[in-house]
Amino acid sequence: MFENNSVNQEILKKRAYNLRWATVPEGVIPLTAADPDFPGPAEIADSIAAYIKDRYFCYGPPEGLPAFKESLAGYFRTKRNIPANPAYIFPVDSAAFGIYITCRAFLAPGDEAVIFDPVDFLFRYSVETVGAKAVPYAIPAGAAPDFDQLESLITPKTKMICLCNPINPTGKVFTRKELSSLAQVAAKHNLVILSDEIWSDIVYPPYEYVSMASLDEDTRSRTITVTGFSKSYGMAGLRIGAVMASGADHFKKIMDASLHTATIHGANTLSQVAAAAALDRCGYWLDGFLVHLQRMRDLCVSELNKISGISCISPQGCYVAFADIRSTGKTSSEIHELLLRDAKVAVVPGLKQWFGDGAEGYIRISFATSEQILKEALSRIKNTIG
Amino acid sequence: MFENNSVNQEILKKRAYNLRWATVPEGVIPLTAADPDFPGPAEIADSIAAYIKDRYFCYGPPEGLPAFKESLAGYFRTKRNIPANPAYIFPVDSAAFGIYITCRAFLAPGDEAVIFDPVDFLFRYSVETVGAKAVPYAIPAGAAPDFDQLESLITPKTKMICLCNPINPTGKVFTRKELSSLAQVAAKHNLVILSDEIWSDIVYPPYEYVSMASLDEDTRSRTITVTGFSKSYGMAGLRIGAVMASGADHFKKIMDASLHTATIHGANTLSQVAAAAALDRCGYWLDGFLVHLQRMRDLCVSELNKISGISCISPQGCYVAFADIRSTGKTSSEIHELLLRDAKVAVVPGLKQWFGDGAEGYIRISFATSEQILKEALSRIKNTIG
Repeated sequence: MFENNSVNQEILKKRAYNLRWATVPEGVIPLTAADPDFPGPAEIADSIAAYIKDRYFCYGPPEGLPAFKESLAGYFRTKRNIPANPAYIFPVDSAAFGIYITCRAFLAPGDEAVIFDPVDFLFRYSVETVGAKAVPYAIPAGAAPDFDQLESLITPKTKMICLCNPINPTGKVFTRKELSSLAQVAAKHNLVILSDEIWSDIVYPPYEYVSMASLDEDTRSRTITVTGFSKSYGMAGLRIGAVMASGADHFKKIMDASLHTATIHGANTLSQVAAAAALDRCGYWLDGFLVHLQRMRDLCVSELNKISGISCISPQGCYVAFADIRSTGKTSSEIHELLLRDAKVAVVPGLKQWFGDGAEGYIRISFATSEQILKEALSRIKNTIG
Repeated sequence: MFENNSVNQEILKKRAYNLRWATVPEGVIPLTAADPDFPGPAEIADSIAAYIKDRYFCYGPPEGLPAFKESLAGYFRTKRNIPANPAYIFPVDSAAFGIYITCRAFLAPGDEAVIFDPVDFLFRYSVETVGAKAVPYAIPAGAAPDFDQLESLITPKTKMICLCNPINPTGKVFTRKELSSLAQVAAKHNLVILSDEIWSDIVYPPYEYVSMASLDEDTRSRTITVTGFSKSYGMAGLRIGAVMASGADHFKKIMDASLHTATIHGANTLSQVAAAAALDRCGYWLDGFLVHLQRMRDLCVSELNKISGISCISPQGCYVAFADIRSTGKTSSEIHELLLRDAKVAVVPGLKQWFGDGAEGYIRISFATSEQILKEALSRIKNTIG
């Protein structure tokens, strides 16, 4: 399923946007947005095919299709050890929207929220869009989080800690002990924890995923869990994610912030069907994907570390390598431009706009592609940089 | 295609939410949310089937798939006589969201926007959600709009007129002359016109649809056109609509308000494919649907007018009848409850929360169903009310 001949470049050139195949010049390999180059499991398409044959695309319920909610609850119970209640889970049109509405529900203008640095831009963006202040908490690539440092950032205005686990772009997976330390800080200052778990399926042994809401009852009561299906099953274009609260009060706050009840937003019913099929029937595919990804990770990291001026830690999770390019003497943008022009490889530069201040001096490389494409790209990078 | 045996109640009971079959007690006929009881055209399902067989659901572009934009531009050019530019059209996850982001783009807290009364609740909701004030402009069922009255509502704080054409719930279709009068007021006070055209395909002869942006260049330059596919093709669950600006400046304002570029929102790629198929290949289906709807309208209005205490004008557009129940001596809510309990028919009461102050004394009845179901419902209503 994850051989080179599974990659259909003809289709990707038509469909893969967001800095990928459909948007780069001919001949460029885009290791940019974290979206797999492989077709998804057949069961997802099958579930859509089964649904569409009746040709009814009626309004879905604002709080989500019962089958979707049950499927998600089953996933959180069995895979994440959380006593999930389907009543407090609802579908959203993306994990990104889940992050945004959680900020909207719990942050007022003037409030502060702690975000990691580096981390995906969506956290800063969402916090700032609702008028609050994003306070960066540095967890550099390869470093252990310093929880005294975290606590020093808390002020009376702090209302939320935004946890991204595993961290995009560094691939760090939090240990149970680290999560407990973070939860203690949250409990001491009575903070909401936004737990972005979109990458939680992509974790490489011996690392194990622990979900924030699985720790204990107090932690669960203050945690909003956000997840999605685009990383695990390649469903970004279907615009589907999920948000889970621990109880009725938080659930209502987030539902209200979602504008679902007014039908201004809502989750596509077909995508809910597809997501439930992914969780219920596509575990074998995800297992195979993970085996492939681990090989690609090892290949990517080992080849990058052979390049003069580049060093790269091995990500514990996610399918992106966050490579330190500071020894090249060039900036992230300069390396990005050089690779695009001379190596014909597109990467994501470590700019503040993408990952925060702590990303400068790095580039991010997605390795969710075939061995052949990845080898070719890495070879071109090596030939260009040295 | 629109016979009684086309209606699949078994599927509807599983899928039709938003106050419809899946949410009402067994035996109740829901003439509530405006969503057809008929399966959609085969070409929509076919287009989805063709897309999913490759099993790639990559990120789409924030500004929409090129094929979607071209299809919409063709529709606006050929069916609406608007010199549409695909660059200024983008897909949104519903017409409702299109209305909301137009409010977000053009209204600041303290601003005022004129909305019709009665009209769909989404206008007041969107205007108020962005912190502005919704100023109701009365156009009672069957009445001609009074443009002096409109002008008297304009203050220095007024920034926008929200046009809903045809008007949901009264079914009024604006003449070219009326639109010109409205455009003159907008021009004189330099107002943006939000033109909600989700119902524009559902117009009964001899009435003809005229699009606000087709009037002249000045009007087009101040108009944001919003449309959707749920009324014409039964695609509410696919969450797809479109917004069109006249130029780069307005387009940028709305795109920014949409949060599409940040991936927080976006339009499902499958739904864009389905919508393009609807516009490009399903005109025959819409024509047939309209012929059926006109028969149902005539049946509905004539039967309602036989009931003592009810009078109903014939809607020029939309597939809802807005029946005046004031002579029953009961409120909209009382009639709604009586019909639900005794007639086992669900209708939408004319409450402020749904349609504004001007809706009290009315109920709204959707007739997008089969003749047999509609006759049964009307007979039950007659037997209950008299």
